[in-house]
Amino acid sequence: MGESTALLTDRYELTMLDAALRDGTAHRRCVFELFGRRLPGARRFGVVAGTGRLLSLLRDFRFGDDELRFLRDERVVDAATLAFLADYRFTGSVSGYREGELYFPGSPLLTIEGTFAEAVVLETLALSVLNHDSAVATAAARMSLAAGDRPLAEMGSRRAGESSAVAAARAAYIAGFGATSNLEAGRRWGIPTMGTAAHSWTLLHDTEEDAFRAQIAALGTGTTLLVDTYDIRTGVETAIRVAGTALGGVRIDSGDLPTVAAQVREQLDELGATGTRITVTSDLDEYAIAALAASPVDAYGVGTSVVTGSGTPTAGMVYKLVARQDSGGGWVGVAKASTDKGSKGGRKSAFRTLDAGTATSELIVVSDGFEELEAASSHPDARPLQVPLVIDGEVDAAHEGPDGVKAARAHHERAREELPVRALALSRSDPAIPTVYVDATPAG
Amino acid sequence: MGESTALLTDRYELTMLDAALRDGTAHRRCVFELFGRRLPGARRFGVVAGTGRLLSLLRDFRFGDDELRFLRDERVVDAATLAFLADYRFTGSVSGYREGELYFPGSPLLTIEGTFAEAVVLETLALSVLNHDSAVATAAARMSLAAGDRPLAEMGSRRAGESSAVAAARAAYIAGFGATSNLEAGRRWGIPTMGTAAHSWTLLHDTEEDAFRAQIAALGTGTTLLVDTYDIRTGVETAIRVAGTALGGVRIDSGDLPTVAAQVREQLDELGATGTRITVTSDLDEYAIAALAASPVDAYGVGTSVVTGSGTPTAGMVYKLVARQDSGGGWVGVAKASTDKGSKGGRKSAFRTLDAGTATSELIVVSDGFEELEAASSHPDARPLQVPLVIDGEVDAAHEGPDGVKAARAHHERAREELPVRALALSRSDPAIPTVYVDATPAG
Repeated sequence: MGESTALLTDRYELTMLDAALRDGTAHRRCVFELFGRRLPGARRFGVVAGTGRLLSLLRDFRFGDDELRFLRDERVVDAATLAFLADYRFTGSVSGYREGELYFPGSPLLTIEGTFAEAVVLETLALSVLNHDSAVATAAARMSLAAGDRPLAEMGSRRAGESSAVAAARAAYIAGFGATSNLEAGRRWGIPTMGTAAHSWTLLHDTEEDAFRAQIAALGTGTTLLVDTYDIRTGVETAIRVAGTALGGVRIDSGDLPTVAAQVREQLDELGATGTRITVTSDLDEYAIAALAASPVDAYGVGTSVVTGSGTPTAGMVYKLVARQDSGGGWVGVAKASTDKGSKGGRKSAFRTLDAGTATSELIVVSDGFEELEAASSHPDARPLQVPLVIDGEVDAAHEGPDGVKAARAHHERAREELPVRALALSRSDPAIPTVYVDATPAG
Repeated sequence: MGESTALLTDRYELTMLDAALRDGTAHRRCVFELFGRRLPGARRFGVVAGTGRLLSLLRDFRFGDDELRFLRDERVVDAATLAFLADYRFTGSVSGYREGELYFPGSPLLTIEGTFAEAVVLETLALSVLNHDSAVATAAARMSLAAGDRPLAEMGSRRAGESSAVAAARAAYIAGFGATSNLEAGRRWGIPTMGTAAHSWTLLHDTEEDAFRAQIAALGTGTTLLVDTYDIRTGVETAIRVAGTALGGVRIDSGDLPTVAAQVREQLDELGATGTRITVTSDLDEYAIAALAASPVDAYGVGTSVVTGSGTPTAGMVYKLVARQDSGGGWVGVAKASTDKGSKGGRKSAFRTLDAGTATSELIVVSDGFEELEAASSHPDARPLQVPLVIDGEVDAAHEGPDGVKAARAHHERAREELPVRALALSRSDPAIPTVYVDATPAG
């Protein structure tokens, strides 16, 4: 078991638990749903990420001595609630979208079923993980589409909180990036890592030539040399003089990249280094990558913009009670009345309808209760989007760890192939497919 | 000791270390500097945050068996480098701005002195922590200024990665927020926590009245009731009927807040609940808070915008080699040539010049070497901005833990009082004071 995650929680969840244990509503069975009312940044599709991480963090959602002592000392809850928390273990069930899946407004990304007491306390943890990771994955997928077949590496750790950086590397990889600079992401999730040298490497040496020679001595001529510490033209000339025409690559981290890339390619070719690759890494985002499509660039490194969701650092998802038992034990769908239309009561089943393999709608079948939902049977090409993640408190380990990441990345690649062409444009717009609600509540 | 932080590192730092151990430059003494070339979001001042966290993470920057095994298996470095890392412990010195201090373009927020080998590997960790925490603190300070004397609580955990959320709560508190919803921030850093109930609390119950009665039974009439689940007017009426006119407060989480706040205040007063406070929490940022200055609002809760830096989720600081020993043991200032003017070689000492207590400039004295810098003696009102944080590998514990947070918050409050009036405007502009460089390199 890892460090406790139980206090990664907003205080009001424990305050509600405390009050609900007093009035007995704590034991009402409930359905909470995690979803986004809209897509981050008015994009055409979203990408679900974080699910596998959340499941592991859920295993560690236990209140140990430190956590209980804090809650007692600060009088956050009373003695009966402390006793409940000491024994807390989520015994309910969670179903949801596969990690890497695409999503649209209203998609029920997670459905959490259990007592109010056990489900209400997971709100903050679930949202923190999915909001962050999905924001990164959604931005990363657009960059990956813009890069096409050219390799794309995530190198933004320094522009994100030190733990979020590891999660961001993971989310970017799921959404199509090929590697990360973050070593912990490599160790923890099996993601390929990359990186050779910074400007400090050149500055450390008495001359640029000394720096290049030392790097090649250590890493071989297949390495990538950073050529823009002083003058790029001189840097490229020195690089090839030192390494020979078999030099693996050069990296450019400044300047007007379309111009500079073309000049460097011409210079490399003139020097006979026709196989030396050009990597660019200066403040790239999906728009800059798209603008370089016709430039002689071989690989991209993206930092700030991918780890910060390219202008939308959080996916804005919410965690809402959508159905509960009433005092008589029957089920009722519930929703905040004064909300906009994206918040809909009732338990939901979700399907992606397809026409010849291309997505046509996000079909969401709504029910007040727990009966099996079969409305999608009228859509023979509808692909069910939800899978069991936790069953009666048992986490499905297939979603966790490096294997979970690999599966999520593969699933994302498949799901992306279903996108209609209009989903690939980078401009702000409406979702690529409409969300269609079908009411399955039995008459009477 | 906590979990190892050693792999929260970009791979190229270890690649450079590996090559530098081979060619001997690893042992050259170096000065690295952490600074921002510009202020996040074209604001008028920045707020330094994260320093105390970084010092604690630095204690845990050790390569254990897991980390070394990964580096060996992935062939990131060779055997000699693995041996170096197994014994790694930072033995250099760090000086820097106090946490909570204001900063401006070029301010040397951290100066790291040691061998290239021991200092180069700290780049990512130092930047991750300061870039995230300072972006949040800088946004938070503006919100705190806009809120004036009204209490301000941070409740954005759900919109940030689960670990960054704890750091964000801490940064916001240092920059003037009064409380957080994040329980772990309360436990770890001693920050006051707050929160009562969500919409799910009302939806859990058969009626809003049931929910209010249960909450009051648990938390007393001094609690704050969330009144906008259904109809706000009915909610307020029910709240006062159930709680009486001694009700502590009502919270509004939707609608056009200036209008709704005025209506609710009028209704509360008509009902005789003249002491019942109004808290608003719907998508606030510094501009919305400022726009509510004339509204009858008693407290603010801010979520997304503070934890995401209100449009600028990273402070964009960099970590650069600015001076090093040459092969003869002498010191040379170094800087990337092709950079914009914000990157300046040489070791720096920083002072804030004041005129009758108001800041007039950020004075940065530049030197190639290690001699004592006394140029500020010509400015009798200059306040030195750097303090020792790590001396010969020994971290000054005064900056860590809850005591460090308390000191940082107090220092921020004092530093803010020095700001000229033009610094308080919210619009995008130039820094409130200029950065002035003075060259102290001895002639010859």
